[in-house]
Amino acid sequence: MKSSIDCIPCFVRQAADAVRMTVPADEDRMRLMRAVLEWMGDIDLDSSPPASVQMIHRRLRGLLPAGDPYREAKDRQNDLAARLIPSIRKRIAESFDSLTMAVRYAITGNILDLGAKNNLGIGDIYAELQSAPIQPIFGDMAAFQKAVSKARQVLYLADNAGEIFFDRLLIEQLAGVKVTLAVRGMPVINDATREDALAAGIDNIAEIIDNGSDAPGTILSDCNAEFRKHFDEADLIIAKGQGNFETLSDAPRDIFFLFRTKCPVISLHSGFCIGTYVATNHFAGGDESRKRGLS
Amino acid sequence: MKSSIDCIPCFVRQAADAVRMTVPADEDRMRLMRAVLEWMGDIDLDSSPPASVQMIHRRLRGLLPAGDPYREAKDRQNDLAARLIPSIRKRIAESFDSLTMAVRYAITGNILDLGAKNNLGIGDIYAELQSAPIQPIFGDMAAFQKAVSKARQVLYLADNAGEIFFDRLLIEQLAGVKVTLAVRGMPVINDATREDALAAGIDNIAEIIDNGSDAPGTILSDCNAEFRKHFDEADLIIAKGQGNFETLSDAPRDIFFLFRTKCPVISLHSGFCIGTYVATNHFAGGDESRKRGLS
Repeated sequence: MKSSIDCIPCFVRQAADAVRMTVPADEDRMRLMRAVLEWMGDIDLDSSPPASVQMIHRRLRGLLPAGDPYREAKDRQNDLAARLIPSIRKRIAESFDSLTMAVRYAITGNILDLGAKNNLGIGDIYAELQSAPIQPIFGDMAAFQKAVSKARQVLYLADNAGEIFFDRLLIEQLAGVKVTLAVRGMPVINDATREDALAAGIDNIAEIIDNGSDAPGTILSDCNAEFRKHFDEADLIIAKGQGNFETLSDAPRDIFFLFRTKCPVISLHSGFCIGTYVATNHFAGGDESRKRGLS
Repeated sequence: MKSSIDCIPCFVRQAADAVRMTVPADEDRMRLMRAVLEWMGDIDLDSSPPASVQMIHRRLRGLLPAGDPYREAKDRQNDLAARLIPSIRKRIAESFDSLTMAVRYAITGNILDLGAKNNLGIGDIYAELQSAPIQPIFGDMAAFQKAVSKARQVLYLADNAGEIFFDRLLIEQLAGVKVTLAVRGMPVINDATREDALAAGIDNIAEIIDNGSDAPGTILSDCNAEFRKHFDEADLIIAKGQGNFETLSDAPRDIFFLFRTKCPVISLHSGFCIGTYVATNHFAGGDESRKRGLS
């Protein structure tokens, strides 16, 4: 999907987050932000939002101290998620329809997104968890359940650290299916990398690959050969989060997108209100959304 | 107070709002946003946030179609507030401590701020109204009540359209006191101007002046002589909202600030958590916050 001028404030905020977390002095911070603002002028609204974020953070990495600015934040999110998981697993096991309940919680985990919001409080997370079991899922859960029942080889595209623990609970429901979990190839914002997949112990239940890319989404032309082979051969692709939706909603194959609509741009493109839990493959090829005049 | 790099995303968003509301074509929007991003490089973090917003929107007005981009949004906020006011007035009249209750609702009205958030839903507003009567007010309500009981001449600095209807309810509680309400001298974001004060009927209960400035706050050196005379002579100044706090927290006189903390920058500067209802004169001269290491 294309970007909008309404994406620019988020791009600026994400860059400011990375700068604030790694550079202490105000003058240095502002000097870096001046560079970021200059790069923003190069943004092409015809590209997807993750393509712009990739460009900005690639350049930013060259100016910031070495290391991953978000590593500490990701560790905190993983620790929080790890503490929550046992009770949620129990809740899923006890529910009438465990697959649907696991989808719900996987989408709930999608609020752990520092790309969309940087001041998420623990209160917000607990409120979200409390409402999770009764959230209606919009899109086509019946089609998702059918696709899962037929699948032999699933490619699961992870989104964020922390959230990946919730993804694990959904992968646990895909018993008897070969699941490959794909993470980003390099750190970008708080997107999950191999380190986070291992922290969630996903290596015990699925194969982990990385896509070789440093985009906070899945830009196929930027992904490595191993990832693209899996992408072509999987008989079910599950793509978590807005970043994967933004980059794959026009991809030339059927993909199930699981995400929570977190911004007006995604809401307009997907046709779902902000805050909605979405499980849909409605956007294969992007024609449908164009037909509906939403993109 | 000074600005932070964390203010920049909001500055960009406010500019994007003005552009989106007045310019239909994507290419034109992006061309304007490129200009805005270039101006952002001129921002001085030593200035208050409203000083930067003033600079950006002054320049933007030169490139946008004539007229006030926010007029329609402000009319909608005024209409919404007008419908809510009768029941809130009743609630205030029936409460044990009408002045405190009116302060609470005046602060609740401060969520009608398109500077802080542009996708405020009607659900958010109703949820806020529901919790308003039981919100604890942080700061020093006792000092505020004492100051009101002694005051003969009050200068009330308005903040936003819509919100100004809630301000009216508080002004109604200041019986027997001469109240002057000051609005911005020109439209900027959704800040209240004379038109909004008249829509709220405040001319029936107070004198209305404008400060002659197009800043979304009160930059004294930019205000007209009439405003500054009132500012010097009033024996109580009530300043609503973050913009007035940002520009006057270091002013050389005692001011009661009523606002809701809506962003991390204000939270850090004021020492109050995000979401807090604040009524305080604690920042006279700004020394106190500096002493506490918060600015």
